[in-house]
This record gives sequence, structure tokens and C-alpha cells, in this order.
Amino acid sequence: MPATVIDGRALAARLREEVATQVASMQEPPGLATLLVGDDAASEIYVRNKRRLCTQVGMRDLHRHLPADVSQGELAAIISDLNADPAVTGILLQLPLPKHLRADDLLALIDPDKDVDGLTEASAGRLALGKPGLRPCTPSGVIRMLDSAGVELRGRHAVVVGRSNLVGKPQAQLLLERDATVSICHRHTTDLAAITRTADVLVVAAGVPHLVGADAVAPGATVIDVGIHRTDTGLCGDVDTAAVAEVAGAVTPVPGGVGPMTIAMLLWNTVEAARLRSAATAAAV
Amino acid sequence: MPATVIDGRALAARLREEVATQVASMQEPPGLATLLVGDDAASEIYVRNKRRLCTQVGMRDLHRHLPADVSQGELAAIISDLNADPAVTGILLQLPLPKHLRADDLLALIDPDKDVDGLTEASAGRLALGKPGLRPCTPSGVIRMLDSAGVELRGRHAVVVGRSNLVGKPQAQLLLERDATVSICHRHTTDLAAITRTADVLVVAAGVPHLVGADAVAPGATVIDVGIHRTDTGLCGDVDTAAVAEVAGAVTPVPGGVGPMTIAMLLWNTVEAARLRSAATAAAV
Repeated sequence: MPATVIDGRALAARLREEVATQVASMQEPPGLATLLVGDDAASEIYVRNKRRLCTQVGMRDLHRHLPADVSQGELAAIISDLNADPAVTGILLQLPLPKHLRADDLLALIDPDKDVDGLTEASAGRLALGKPGLRPCTPSGVIRMLDSAGVELRGRHAVVVGRSNLVGKPQAQLLLERDATVSICHRHTTDLAAITRTADVLVVAAGVPHLVGADAVAPGATVIDVGIHRTDTGLCGDVDTAAVAEVAGAVTPVPGGVGPMTIAMLLWNTVEAARLRSAATAAAV
Repeated sequence: MPATVIDGRALAARLREEVATQVASMQEPPGLATLLVGDDAASEIYVRNKRRLCTQVGMRDLHRHLPADVSQGELAAIISDLNADPAVTGILLQLPLPKHLRADDLLALIDPDKDVDGLTEASAGRLALGKPGLRPCTPSGVIRMLDSAGVELRGRHAVVVGRSNLVGKPQAQLLLERDATVSICHRHTTDLAAITRTADVLVVAAGVPHLVGADAVAPGATVIDVGIHRTDTGLCGDVDTAAVAEVAGAVTPVPGGVGPMTIAMLLWNTVEAARLRSAATAAAV
């Protein structure tokens, strides 16, 4: 029997509605500051999408477009201003940056309470220690998808393929937090299929087109495909979806799977940042 | 054939000699500030040992003993002074603290460049993102032991049992950084022995006496026992060492295994903190 398809587009639309409802109930709408440096075409498209959806859910779009030759110091000063500005709930520094800028140093300046991408050192530390904080959007979107599909995580074997700071490593932490037994595989893993075949839940974020085929999946497993690649015959992921769907219990499509969830989680994180801040303010009063 | 025993005492002694040699070559000896609050008997013994070995390797012992009723604000001010004091290379806040103090908030004040225990949020973030920083002593001591025993990690399957912030989680990160395929098991893991039997390297930090027996270990595997428990018949670990030694390739004893390595790594971290600082100073000049 072919697998259930987990519809990321529908789920992301529902999540955005949920965010919009929450925004509507707030005294002040949260503000999302997107920082775009230079004229990278792909980055412009990403940022435009984020801004469009931000406005759609009723949040303030506080975009800043900076010239490609902005200096490290100027950008640092802008981040510092955004940290101090009470109208700014979340700050997103769109990567990659032009080569003369040190992205890591700039990310480190973002107030962790406004780090809606969840990618700073402070946010990574909070996640690692299981403390409240803002989590990276893609892996937390994956957890939402698993929950929506009714996939039990506690005590199940979750296998993550890939160990990037953006997806693989935080994904493993989030699955562990949900009491899964977690294995992390990568390019040095000796017999990848032997391990992925033991997974109840398999998250593939390796960046290799069609890395995971039907032989690498256990019957009934849930398979989440984080990869997205442009090929001559269209978009594809890290999973050979058509073949895997004959074996797995549930799969995510590419496109229309994890992708739409990532931006929806960014909006959700912005609301979460507003909530964390008002909780902190209330505690301080 | 019974397993090789990895002698933690001998290894720790060699590591301390290495640290002493490095200290002797420095213009200024590093200073380790241990902070002990109140009169917890076990904590006093731990701190006394750390101070003794600190002096033995030629570092400055900058101990502060504070009364049990010290306030959060007073302790925060002391940490702040130690952060600013150039004679202080490393700061160690001995836990547990009296109940009226918020340990997490105090740990968060320690300058990550002086966090020789490697337990703050900032240090956890650096580790999670693979950035330079000070690593928690016990799991980095385990990596040293594996290296000293000539155990290959790249591409091997390393299984960690336990997911504490102190050992299990950072251990998994350190093994991943060394290119092992890493699995993390815990109380919710369904069939623990089935997973540990697939380990080339097994690190047990579960806090359960004799949790791992011979049936849970693959022939030839390396088994590191982080547990230590006081029983009527003496000290024992999380591993049934006598039984496991008949199957494994190498084991660590309890006592005399991981324990002595932890303090040695604290001294090593203090030298590392001095090195990181002088590198940062050189870069700033």
C-alpha cells in the first residue's frame, strides 16, 4: 500500500492561520526585521516571501535593505539598534552575506530573545541544555509535521541523516527532547542503509539528491525529506519519494513538504519571541 | 580473551604532567578560581582535590569560600569581578548550590572564555555549532581515553547511554565531531541491549549500577563506564565490568577509569583558556 503523503503546504497554511489568530489577539503586533545585504537574487526572493507572509499574518514588516558594500561596523550598529528597539520582536539576517562581512560575528550580536532563526550560539546553547528559547525553523517544522501526522516519538528510533548546524544537529536534539532514541548519520557512516532501515522515523537532510531509496527504509516508517534540488526533470529531494512511498508508512513530498513549514515556523517563532518577552516583562514587574 | 583495561589513573597522571610542562613554559601561570558556597561535605572534598592538583601543576589557586547564606546578588558581583580580573584564567562554580540561589542564572554570568567546566549556555552553544571553546571535562576526558587507547572513531558506531547536560549530550556531540556515527539511548529506549550490541564504542553514563552486562556488548567493542556508585561491596559503575571484560576489546575500570580524567581535563581546560585568551589578545593587537 503506498504511503500517506504528509502535506506540508496545507499544514503550513493552517499554522499561518494559527499565527494570525494569535497576532490578532495581541495588544501590539510583533515586528519582524529582515536584513538583506546586497543583491543576491535567491536571497531577494526568500526575503520577499518572508515579508509577504509576515504581513499576511498581521505582523509588522520591518525590512532593511543594505548596500553590498555596507561595512561590518555599520551592520553591527544596525543589529544593535534593532536589539534595542521595542517595536522589533524578531531579527533575521539573511545569509549568505557578501564575502567581506564576518557572518558569525554578526549573528552573535543578535539578542537571543529576538533570534527568530534560532541559529545563534546562544540559541544553540539553550537548545542543547533543554532551556526555553527560539529553535531553528526547519527542524522544529519537522517536529510539527510529525505531530500533525500522529507519529509517536517517545521510545521510537529516529535516524537523522546529515549533521549541519542548520538542520541535522538541532533536529537530533529536538527528537531527543521528545524522548526518541536518536542516531545521527553522515558522509562517514559506514553502512547507511543498514542504519536507516532500523528507523521508525527517518529525517534526511544530507543535501544529496535521491540518497535514500526503498532499500534503505523499513516497512511502515515515516520518512521526512529536507532536501531540495533543481534537476533537469524538476525539483527533487534527498529521498527517492516514488520508490520509498511503496515501503514507508508516510512520506513528505518535494516540493510541498518541509519547505513551506520553514517559513511558517519563522512566523511562529516571531510570535513566540513576543510571548517570551512579555513573560519576561511580567516576571520583572 | 579478557579485555584490555584502560588505566584512567595513569593517563590522568600523564595528562597532568603535560599540563605542568605547559604551565612552566608560560610567562604567567594560569589562575583557577574555585567558588565554594556553604559547607556541603562532598563539595568540600571535590574542591580540595581540584585545588591540590591545580597547585601541583604550577597554577595559581584562587579559591573563594563563601558562607551558605551569601545572596544571589553578592555571588553575581563576585563572578563579575572574577570575569574582569586578568589573574583569573578559569572560574569554577562548585555545584550544588544552597537552595536559595539560582545556579543557572549564576552560571550564565561566567565569561565563556573562563568557563573551564564547559557547562554554561555559551559553551554548550559553541560545542553544538562546532566553534572553538571550552568543552565539558568528563566527555572530553572520555575522548582522550579513546585516543590514548588507539580507538578509531571515524565511521565507527558510537552509542552513548544517558542524555544529561553534563555527560551524555556533550559526549554525543564530541563523538560526532570526530566523525563517528552516533546513537543516543536513554530511559525511554525500547530495546537498549539490541542497540548497544551494535556499538563499536559504547559510553555508558546512565547513573544506573550495572545497567550494561555482557549480553549488551559486541565482541571487541570499547566500553567506557562513566558511572560511579557506592555499594555495600565497594564502588561500582554503570557497567558490569567483570562480565563485560570477557566480551569487550577494552574497558575502563571503576574506580580508576573516567573519574581521574575529569579533574585532569579541568586543569587542561584552564591551560586551554589561557591559550585562547592569549590568541585573542594577539589577534586584537
